[in-house]
Amino acid sequence: MALLESITEPADLRRLAAAQLTELAGEIREFLIRAVCHTGGHLGPNLGVVELTIALHRVFGSPFDRLVFDTGHQSYVHKLLTGRRAGFAGLRQEGGLSGYPSRAESVHDLVENSHASTALSYADGLAKAFALDGSDRRVVAVIGDGALTGGLAWEALNNLGGCDRPVVVVLNDNGRSYEPTVGGLAGQLAASRRRSGYGDVLALLEGGHERPAPPTPSELFGGLGLGYLGPVDGHDIAALERAFAAAREYGRPVVVHCLTRKGLGYGPAETDDADRLHSIGVVDPATGTPVKSERTWTHAFSDELVALGSERADVVAVSAAMVRPTGLYPFAVKFPDRAYDVGIAEQHAVTSAAGLAMGGKHPVVAIYATFLNRAFDQVMTDVGLHRLPVTFVLDRAGVTGPDGPSHHGMWDMAALGVVPGLRLAAPRDAGTLREELREAVDVADGPTVLRFPKASLSDDIPALHRAGGVDLLRRPERPDILLVSVGVLAGAALAAADELAALGHRVTVVDPRWVHPAPPVLAELAAEHRLVVTVEDGVREGGAGAAIAALLADAGVEVPVRVLGLPREFLPHAGRGSLLSRYGLDAAGIAAATLDSLGRIPTATTA
Amino acid sequence: MALLESITEPADLRRLAAAQLTELAGEIREFLIRAVCHTGGHLGPNLGVVELTIALHRVFGSPFDRLVFDTGHQSYVHKLLTGRRAGFAGLRQEGGLSGYPSRAESVHDLVENSHASTALSYADGLAKAFALDGSDRRVVAVIGDGALTGGLAWEALNNLGGCDRPVVVVLNDNGRSYEPTVGGLAGQLAASRRRSGYGDVLALLEGGHERPAPPTPSELFGGLGLGYLGPVDGHDIAALERAFAAAREYGRPVVVHCLTRKGLGYGPAETDDADRLHSIGVVDPATGTPVKSERTWTHAFSDELVALGSERADVVAVSAAMVRPTGLYPFAVKFPDRAYDVGIAEQHAVTSAAGLAMGGKHPVVAIYATFLNRAFDQVMTDVGLHRLPVTFVLDRAGVTGPDGPSHHGMWDMAALGVVPGLRLAAPRDAGTLREELREAVDVADGPTVLRFPKASLSDDIPALHRAGGVDLLRRPERPDILLVSVGVLAGAALAAADELAALGHRVTVVDPRWVHPAPPVLAELAAEHRLVVTVEDGVREGGAGAAIAALLADAGVEVPVRVLGLPREFLPHAGRGSLLSRYGLDAAGIAAATLDSLGRIPTATTA
Repeated sequence: MALLESITEPADLRRLAAAQLTELAGEIREFLIRAVCHTGGHLGPNLGVVELTIALHRVFGSPFDRLVFDTGHQSYVHKLLTGRRAGFAGLRQEGGLSGYPSRAESVHDLVENSHASTALSYADGLAKAFALDGSDRRVVAVIGDGALTGGLAWEALNNLGGCDRPVVVVLNDNGRSYEPTVGGLAGQLAASRRRSGYGDVLALLEGGHERPAPPTPSELFGGLGLGYLGPVDGHDIAALERAFAAAREYGRPVVVHCLTRKGLGYGPAETDDADRLHSIGVVDPATGTPVKSERTWTHAFSDELVALGSERADVVAVSAAMVRPTGLYPFAVKFPDRAYDVGIAEQHAVTSAAGLAMGGKHPVVAIYATFLNRAFDQVMTDVGLHRLPVTFVLDRAGVTGPDGPSHHGMWDMAALGVVPGLRLAAPRDAGTLREELREAVDVADGPTVLRFPKASLSDDIPALHRAGGVDLLRRPERPDILLVSVGVLAGAALAAADELAALGHRVTVVDPRWVHPAPPVLAELAAEHRLVVTVEDGVREGGAGAAIAALLADAGVEVPVRVLGLPREFLPHAGRGSLLSRYGLDAAGIAAATLDSLGRIPTATTA
Repeated sequence: MALLESITEPADLRRLAAAQLTELAGEIREFLIRAVCHTGGHLGPNLGVVELTIALHRVFGSPFDRLVFDTGHQSYVHKLLTGRRAGFAGLRQEGGLSGYPSRAESVHDLVENSHASTALSYADGLAKAFALDGSDRRVVAVIGDGALTGGLAWEALNNLGGCDRPVVVVLNDNGRSYEPTVGGLAGQLAASRRRSGYGDVLALLEGGHERPAPPTPSELFGGLGLGYLGPVDGHDIAALERAFAAAREYGRPVVVHCLTRKGLGYGPAETDDADRLHSIGVVDPATGTPVKSERTWTHAFSDELVALGSERADVVAVSAAMVRPTGLYPFAVKFPDRAYDVGIAEQHAVTSAAGLAMGGKHPVVAIYATFLNRAFDQVMTDVGLHRLPVTFVLDRAGVTGPDGPSHHGMWDMAALGVVPGLRLAAPRDAGTLREELREAVDVADGPTVLRFPKASLSDDIPALHRAGGVDLLRRPERPDILLVSVGVLAGAALAAADELAALGHRVTVVDPRWVHPAPPVLAELAAEHRLVVTVEDGVREGGAGAAIAALLADAGVEVPVRVLGLPREFLPHAGRGSLLSRYGLDAAGIAAATLDSLGRIPTATTA
């Protein structure tokens, strides 16, 4: 690691000779494999951009020139080359190095966002600003072929191509999103790799056209007004440097098409057909297999969807480039005609699901909670306005953990709560997940949502009984406090109730099961208590607790409501349990907040 | 109108001879001009699709085959041909014909949404459903070239091209959105109109490429895996029919490229360089000029932005294909280098604005409230997470009127209220609009939002005094009721206060000015009253009133809060005043709700 240790800033790279650069690339791979297998993180993507990142930092002068990494998980090499090697021991750990670019870490970082397809739009804006300043700073956007399936990237290409600002688009073409990239564009790029013909377009009009030759990527991007350089071997540093230098001087928007191999240099990644070890937990470096493997919420959903698929031919599944991570894979294997991967294209996932529903099917769109934000209008207008039966299954809802602020799925209950006719359930365990998934798929007149966390499953929590659609989990005589626990926080709420009971309080715990709209029976139940405390792993503002408070206010129930949840802030990366505790969403926090609220109730209104 | 009167369903069209079809097209134009000038509505787009729609209904068998109109405002001809001629007298009037497709009106209507770029995704979903059924029903999506600048259309093209389902994409290419279509794609399509070369792509790499010929649209769409037929004269019914018949039998996804002229057949539209009379109010049919013209909120914003632009060189403006409707035109004329029209691409508008802000500018993104829903994640993650100074100016906020459910801008305060660090103001008049716009543009560490309605301006409403950032508009001695009025509803709140005062109540009226985050002084103010009533023209759930209720609860202020606003429903089309009254947001409604709430307060807690 002698060379790697000598690099503390990009300028150090420019002193190395060609052979040293190759040696450095080897050291970086070795370092990444060891470090990421130890902490977990994004391995495959970074192994694919080692040479590309070295060449970028030799040709462009960051931070004067600006580098924007789309889906910042491909920025590990960039971090190594900008003085952050020591931080990798704490990668994605609480207080440690972020798994994405971070402006707090380095002046070389700019865009912290890890949602895909944004880099070209940022670059367009930066280039506009630099042009107004009369500056010759260059803007470089590194974007994968998978991210080009997202509409935002298309909007940006269309805008870049319509102007003359010198943006350099580095197309990191590895042929994959998580899995192989889908759609016509992928075929287009694949054709350029094969250097062979593609397409079977026939002009059927009388006096029609010759069958056209398929456009090359040069023609495709050129047709949009961008220049094109390549394809370039993305693992040949000298070739990359020549291409980047030409792009730097190009004077207009230009695409540099780099062919890379995801996971290059690490056997278990290169031979992994599933996802080339895109993102891993802690794994054994020798084999790439997880050190521990537990049954998760995703597994429970996955199994039940297959069961549903066997029972109902109208149930179909839609994924936005995440068939495996969202648990759709077993369904897709069993019902290949009824599973659709639309690429990193959340908007299309939702609106094509609306079309499927109009055609009489019941689509289940499986997606990470944070990513459904990207199709908010499509849920509202394309599905909601038409009262179409589409079920959204939000994995990674609530506090997600090491992926940090743009991955915490904490906005869903607030944002989706305004969609007319939408019903949202938060299962508390595997049993209610199965049950509520079936209820959701039985709804025929509007969208339904299920949300659950990225976590291992605990034992099911049985209900004492169900009343008015809600599950009573704890029900003392002459109760004084009502705890309303949303989804997975039921366990913490029950533990808090035990703590409070030990202090002499009589605590009811209820799981509303369906959070939106708030079940009316909660108002009746609340009226039997002198304090209501709601508990959710979502943003407090406009969330489940706010809906319950509004329900009580509308019903004229004057019992005070204390809403516990996540603050209206972007939460840092850290362990899920640690963050829940920090924000008072563990048993101790819930009990303490309840006692605090009890202390605030005027004596006159105390029972 | 003899022919037009003989058409009550598409089958009637198939009995007409060629000459009669031409005559019918003339009758339809005459009818549309007269009808739409009388009621207001979308004129230019419909004059451009007369022949296209006739041909579609002769070749395809709706509703067995399904027609999806992107931006449904181009469906008037379709409505005429499906038995709804009589309804045009009440077009966009309360209880009358919708300005968009409506499933309640006709079995020939399917997608009611008027947000652009969705049709191809619906079509993809419908085609998937029909394929599962083994049906040979055809799906036809009619989409404008402007709507192709939206990323969702790209996501759909990429998916359509990757499969073999027989979707017919009718590209209604008139070279315009509201104004001429922007971006590289537009150049691409324009080149196909000119039939001449385009582009100046130079390969600079050693051993590089020849300068490639620009791809034809056939190659462009073909490269994505779709067939291509055309271009076809969009006003030649026979040619259109031949093309559509070929497309129907094509057996794979295919684009039929129709060249049309927006506003064809109506002099004032054809010669209008601004927007070809895209959407009009009531106009004089002879001249196309509005019957009445009043100063609107848009005008006030427009003028102040020009003033700001003169004072601050860092202020830039961004529009998503609506430079004129949002009032940016005067700014764009005065500062052409600092105004950007990105096409119908709300996501890119927001994320490129984030890039501009990273580059040191202060972008003002002017957009209709309903359309910002399309970039919710970009506001949250691309702008909010990075705490970037971008100001969003939401025109058409609240109840919008005749455009109906997908245009009411009623979700903004709820949805945007969860974005960390975002500040949202609702000016009550032109004076506060100017003032709050300046305050917004002075914010350096996060997104700001201004929202105002589609309405004429009334006289300014002076504040008695400002305290803690809020404006007291009415302040009696020993007050008992606090009315918190959001934005334009200040006038109604003051009138309601007068009604209540006449009954002996002492009513304070306060304008919080900044709705998000809720000003803390409201809690102190509330504590001096025995009832708080909040009034907003947005959805009640999670909106301004909910935020104020949460503020009071967190502060331990136990005064009851009655939240008045719009229900969590899609509101129909009707006049703005009529809808506000229907939902109790006029003086009488506010007073009545206040009295009702007073009646519910237990005597024990009455002052």
